[in-house]
Amino acid sequence: MQEKFRTIHYGIGAVGAEVLRVALQRQDIQVVGAIDTHPAKAGRELGEVLGLGRHLGITISYDAEFLLRGTSADVVVQATTSHLITVYPQLVQAVASEKNVISSCEELSYPWTGQGELARKLDRKAKEAGVTVLGAGANPGFVMDVLPLVLTSTCQEVRSIAITRVVDTSTRRLQLQIKTGAGLSPQEFRFRVSDGSIGHVGLKESLFMIAETMGWSLDEVKESIEPVIATRRWETGAFIVEKGRVAGLRQTAVAMAGDREAIRLELQMSLGAEQPRDSIVIDGKPPIKLTIAGGIQGDQAAAAIIVNLIPAVVKARPGLLTMRDLPFIPWWSARGWWKEVPDDEHLRVL
Amino acid sequence: MQEKFRTIHYGIGAVGAEVLRVALQRQDIQVVGAIDTHPAKAGRELGEVLGLGRHLGITISYDAEFLLRGTSADVVVQATTSHLITVYPQLVQAVASEKNVISSCEELSYPWTGQGELARKLDRKAKEAGVTVLGAGANPGFVMDVLPLVLTSTCQEVRSIAITRVVDTSTRRLQLQIKTGAGLSPQEFRFRVSDGSIGHVGLKESLFMIAETMGWSLDEVKESIEPVIATRRWETGAFIVEKGRVAGLRQTAVAMAGDREAIRLELQMSLGAEQPRDSIVIDGKPPIKLTIAGGIQGDQAAAAIIVNLIPAVVKARPGLLTMRDLPFIPWWSARGWWKEVPDDEHLRVL
Repeated sequence: MQEKFRTIHYGIGAVGAEVLRVALQRQDIQVVGAIDTHPAKAGRELGEVLGLGRHLGITISYDAEFLLRGTSADVVVQATTSHLITVYPQLVQAVASEKNVISSCEELSYPWTGQGELARKLDRKAKEAGVTVLGAGANPGFVMDVLPLVLTSTCQEVRSIAITRVVDTSTRRLQLQIKTGAGLSPQEFRFRVSDGSIGHVGLKESLFMIAETMGWSLDEVKESIEPVIATRRWETGAFIVEKGRVAGLRQTAVAMAGDREAIRLELQMSLGAEQPRDSIVIDGKPPIKLTIAGGIQGDQAAAAIIVNLIPAVVKARPGLLTMRDLPFIPWWSARGWWKEVPDDEHLRVL
Repeated sequence: MQEKFRTIHYGIGAVGAEVLRVALQRQDIQVVGAIDTHPAKAGRELGEVLGLGRHLGITISYDAEFLLRGTSADVVVQATTSHLITVYPQLVQAVASEKNVISSCEELSYPWTGQGELARKLDRKAKEAGVTVLGAGANPGFVMDVLPLVLTSTCQEVRSIAITRVVDTSTRRLQLQIKTGAGLSPQEFRFRVSDGSIGHVGLKESLFMIAETMGWSLDEVKESIEPVIATRRWETGAFIVEKGRVAGLRQTAVAMAGDREAIRLELQMSLGAEQPRDSIVIDGKPPIKLTIAGGIQGDQAAAAIIVNLIPAVVKARPGLLTMRDLPFIPWWSARGWWKEVPDDEHLRVL
């Protein structure tokens, strides 16, 4: 095996930058390229844009195709937007350059049900190029899908799964506060929901991953997004939210199998949300009731998951995979496990 | 792929019987043989011994070698005792008959550190025979090792892992109450600990699985077993525990890496233990603090895990594996996922 995994980073926004900060600390990863078309980033030195106080010898390229074609790398970390249709051309560029891709695109976390046609096309292209494409993240990708599925391995029977994630956005980045509608009037909120600029992307993908893995045929999927109204005034550093205006959102996706509520996913993200947590309730034998106090910090976890998965994605079979399809990749994998493994066969689990 | 996975069940004790009850309900599993040398079981009809109220057409054999050689099967579920050295000859019998093995033997859950020589021998024999051997269970095997390792996939850094499992044995089977010393005097308890007849087997195995997966070199491992004294009188159905006598045990394993307490595992199993739960605390970035209220019911979960893993073990590469080495196997896998998978390649994850 080569000394280090060479990575190119496509998109240096909040997630992309956090991934880079983690990757740059890893001795088994070598960052060899960066792409971003934002005028404030393209053409600048990567270390400067990341605020590292040192140069990395990497200039952020605005020309993805040129950089991807001209640079040898094992993995492209693609982290731009949430919607698959927008990200698709970027994924295809990366695949065409015969590089594996890990993407933070929420809709890529489980596109098989909701966007089957794009998923199949991407799967075909990846197989033709002999590379792996994976949608990865903390949510979707772990907290509300893979983690509950892992827990079902202890069940003789599963009747339903309910997951609640409550995030206090006052402790999180501005971008998330904006994405959850903080500061809007309830009326503006509803308008922004209807045009798709507000709301968490990925709840349906989590739901579909669970349903298909459990083998449940669903008769109906209901999704709703409601505003959470501020009961006090908030100053978030960047803007002020008066009492009575929107503090965030409560988003729900419910899957019915006949009369049975098979899956319920509830996500509340708002300023000062009480009892922030992740909770998973499996009505099964045995029943499971799990709570993660405070909830898993999404930005940090997403970057960790993406970086931890780099070696696995390099070794994985070609095609479009989801996090459900990979073996679990503990933190240590990124500390050199892959290099110390005696032979390749050891990695071939099945 | 064949229609059903054929299984032979070696050991019809508490765990073995629960595995059978689950397996018999699965449409993708066909039970084809049973072995037990206990005079009350050998030679009897399996359905009768299980208390099913119906015959299964299977007589429990006392002659393992004869049955294993003469019966075609995919997997032997071996569930007899906790210690690898005792179970080893039975595992070798099963391997020699060229069948995959899933064993509930606690010390087999991660034998590489504590019993490296036996582990290597078994691994070699399994590879020669072209079969997989796996130690599986809820604890060890999931609650105090695999589950925390799965959670580390969300971490950029992990400094230490602490796991507490509290089981109220008044709600559990007699055998567990006895195994945890219920009813003894504190003096008898200490004697029984010293001769190894009391105590949970597997805490060190969980600890070693975590340490090796995290890549931590340990400088010291401390293990202790203390009695929990009954603060009231208990009648457990089978026997009476007076106040002041032993209600159960508290067992601890701690791993030091230099001055750092890298891993702490605490297991309390006693009559009326307060706040029964599984709790996992990862000191990392992000930190994770997880609690499973009531704790995962070990007997039910162990049987579920073993049955859910049957298809995976049939497909897995030869050799001695641990639950850390397999992809996560959700409940549905046992409901036919493996049969509906379009091609074998889909199962080859890495």
